[in-house]
Amino acid sequence: MRTFGGVEAGGSKFSCILGSEPDNISSERTIRTTTPEKTLAEVIEFFAEASEPISSIGIGSFGPVELNKSSRFYGYITNTPKPGWQNTDISGTIGRALKVPIFIDTDTNAAGLAETKWGSAKSLNFVLYVTVGTGIGGGCIINGKPYHGLLHPEMGHMRIPHDKKQDPFPGACSFHGDCLEGLASGQAIYKRWEVPGENLPTNHPAWILETEYIATGLVNLICTLSPQRIILGGGVMKRIELFDPIRTKVRDLANRYFDHPQFQDKISEYIVPPMLGTRAGVLGALALAKDGLAS
Amino acid sequence: MRTFGGVEAGGSKFSCILGSEPDNISSERTIRTTTPEKTLAEVIEFFAEASEPISSIGIGSFGPVELNKSSRFYGYITNTPKPGWQNTDISGTIGRALKVPIFIDTDTNAAGLAETKWGSAKSLNFVLYVTVGTGIGGGCIINGKPYHGLLHPEMGHMRIPHDKKQDPFPGACSFHGDCLEGLASGQAIYKRWEVPGENLPTNHPAWILETEYIATGLVNLICTLSPQRIILGGGVMKRIELFDPIRTKVRDLANRYFDHPQFQDKISEYIVPPMLGTRAGVLGALALAKDGLAS
Repeated sequence: MRTFGGVEAGGSKFSCILGSEPDNISSERTIRTTTPEKTLAEVIEFFAEASEPISSIGIGSFGPVELNKSSRFYGYITNTPKPGWQNTDISGTIGRALKVPIFIDTDTNAAGLAETKWGSAKSLNFVLYVTVGTGIGGGCIINGKPYHGLLHPEMGHMRIPHDKKQDPFPGACSFHGDCLEGLASGQAIYKRWEVPGENLPTNHPAWILETEYIATGLVNLICTLSPQRIILGGGVMKRIELFDPIRTKVRDLANRYFDHPQFQDKISEYIVPPMLGTRAGVLGALALAKDGLAS
Repeated sequence: MRTFGGVEAGGSKFSCILGSEPDNISSERTIRTTTPEKTLAEVIEFFAEASEPISSIGIGSFGPVELNKSSRFYGYITNTPKPGWQNTDISGTIGRALKVPIFIDTDTNAAGLAETKWGSAKSLNFVLYVTVGTGIGGGCIINGKPYHGLLHPEMGHMRIPHDKKQDPFPGACSFHGDCLEGLASGQAIYKRWEVPGENLPTNHPAWILETEYIATGLVNLICTLSPQRIILGGGVMKRIELFDPIRTKVRDLANRYFDHPQFQDKISEYIVPPMLGTRAGVLGALALAKDGLAS
């Protein structure tokens, strides 16, 4: 069996993995995200120590990432707000040092791919993965492949209704103020209430707003993509008690317009947590490595 | 050269066409939409009169349409609000009478397909077609094929911000009130101002609202699908003077987040009118017939 590498490149840590599939992982390491030079050197070191040859490495990265193969900046992290990481050739740096093919995509697309291959959306053709964490992002896996267009999707930045009487918070997005991410991300919760979400009690009004915003975002994504299933992950969604109110709100907002049991009595099978949990991202990177080489 | 049939099935008229491509059309007919029995009989009559054998017929239909081939209602118009047309087997009725293969899709997907094949989005892989007419709909053509998911997209029904101080109109959508279609469709304009849009002068405040709502809808679609080009058609968009303010508003709302010239100085090539005009739908139906048989 061949060995592949996976890197989940995140704003606070890089997770690295070596193996072939979830049940066959030979080694893992977590590296703190500091400067590109230092962090990527540690990533390269991890893979260089591997006892078997590596066929290819997949990277699921925070973004924006240049995914257009005809661009001279292919595989770069581009205009990220993360200090020091603008225009970082993450793909080229790792690939040149280790002399292996690199396949890169967004962190959300990678996680969606892993859930489609091995998790909550196995064998489905139209899968939507949405993460609600520090930011909000979404990836669409169509026939087993992450969807891109001109650029990659930035689903968290859609505009949704915002009743300023109910919620006077102006929004936390530095580009768009009260877009979905600006209203409902972990960062928005923190800035609105001045307390991290994980410290807020279950009956805090934060969760009423959160339910409404996330459900509205999902309804907009359903209108556009009509996925067969929605995997809802990320740090905020570790509060598993949010799932039922979000499902109810989605059903209410759809208001019987979508004529399918998935939007009625089967909605608990329609909007689900990730089966691979926090490992979806790094396993997705492994899947990118395997699929990239196969195609 | 083989002959194909195309039907654009609309709420007020059915357009029928016979030929092989835009420059080779042998016959056309427009039929008023009355009851399913009467209208479909006239459609069948048109094709039965053809002097050459018809290889296949494509239908681009108002919806919702059942497009899941494993459903026993495949090819039906399903829960449409149009009186008399609920659960109409449009595909089966035409196919059985004429004994030809039928390929059906939504009217918007058909129009998007025609624009991708012969019009404003020739040879692009990720094309978004949005129509703003009596209703609002969108179709996404990925690698030359109309995208479906669990159901087909219903992009007009996304929720967008609605400032009720600026625009106290509650929205015209019978399912969702002030969704995009409820705020910005031709019907919404008519209900809000009690005058049909075509009778409103260019400097009427209706067009400021229209610009804002359509641009917001497009930004949400860009966030989700990141198309290479957006074709903006439908009756309302015949007001060609709306294009520039919509482009400016899209650029302002995106606020330099999307790092690509298409969202800056090249935006006039990015959001464009349909090249095939009002014939996009029926030519798209012809394309469905051809592509369906080829695949």
